[in-house]
Amino acid sequence: MRNFARKKNHYANRGMGLEEDLEQTNQYYLEHDIAVIYKKPTAVTIKNVTYPEKKYTKITDGYFTKSSTTDYNGIYRGWYIDFEAKETKNKTSFALSMLQNHQLQHLQNIKKHNGIAFLIIRFTFWDRTFLLDIEKLNTFTKNNKRKSIPFSFFEEEAWEIKNGYQPRLDYLKIIEQHYL
Amino acid sequence: MRNFARKKNHYANRGMGLEEDLEQTNQYYLEHDIAVIYKKPTAVTIKNVTYPEKKYTKITDGYFTKSSTTDYNGIYRGWYIDFEAKETKNKTSFALSMLQNHQLQHLQNIKKHNGIAFLIIRFTFWDRTFLLDIEKLNTFTKNNKRKSIPFSFFEEEAWEIKNGYQPRLDYLKIIEQHYL
Repeated sequence: MRNFARKKNHYANRGMGLEEDLEQTNQYYLEHDIAVIYKKPTAVTIKNVTYPEKKYTKITDGYFTKSSTTDYNGIYRGWYIDFEAKETKNKTSFALSMLQNHQLQHLQNIKKHNGIAFLIIRFTFWDRTFLLDIEKLNTFTKNNKRKSIPFSFFEEEAWEIKNGYQPRLDYLKIIEQHYL
Repeated sequence: MRNFARKKNHYANRGMGLEEDLEQTNQYYLEHDIAVIYKKPTAVTIKNVTYPEKKYTKITDGYFTKSSTTDYNGIYRGWYIDFEAKETKNKTSFALSMLQNHQLQHLQNIKKHNGIAFLIIRFTFWDRTFLLDIEKLNTFTKNNKRKSIPFSFFEEEAWEIKNGYQPRLDYLKIIEQHYL
């Protein structure tokens, strides 16, 4: 049953991506009263709106603004959780340019204030997803001038989050094992 | 000096509103390494975009969506903090219709997971701002069929956040006194 379910899930999810997996996972955590973790809305600046037939507010001019923080945060067993999630098609490394400096700054800040701060990085080609603690990333960037993190670093220093069925990406299991 | 500063501030801030006060306060907390608390971006659904002169992405059609959560969250001394902030022009009561059910549900959820959850309510006519714990709000709604909370309830059951200069609205002082 489990294999069947996973296989079905595997095909059903083709191309659904990391964001959808996290969405489903966070929904699962919420419904099962495990944690309260949300993705933040995309930051936009609204320049103009109209009111078509007075029914609703239509945004007719706006643009995307850089968020000051990461995409995800919330609470798990009283702990403040904060992370950014990215997926890469690259087989051999993760380009650091996919993260913004102020996001890394933010994660370090969270760590300093006793929160749990990390990255979730998926290598889509290998269909493998890793949880990398912000401290380990800092150690890497301090000791390396490379602009990308090799896949092998993830295999050695990060913790792999196995694909599942319910929830699809049980990252809190990793938190449970390694942080609490 | 302090009086002068506060007076100056008082006039300078006329009409700036609760949101701006919280923005400045959270910025102060961040810069002084006291806490990391942000307002979430307004949730919008984008239906269409264009790329004027290939320079940026312009949103040409979109609408506002209900957020599932509150506007503010973050971390203070390792504690997960979550709140919604509203101001009312009403002199005698705060209309509960200004809050959405799912926001109150969210705050209760946060409390259950050992976070600190509350409302910040400002009565603009009196220029007085209160921090109301979510549990106290629950007690009120359980024992009352009223659709608004009288001002006197805030005076008795909530904690007043005094207007200040730096930061303008030091709500963490209240948290410090009553929660930690």
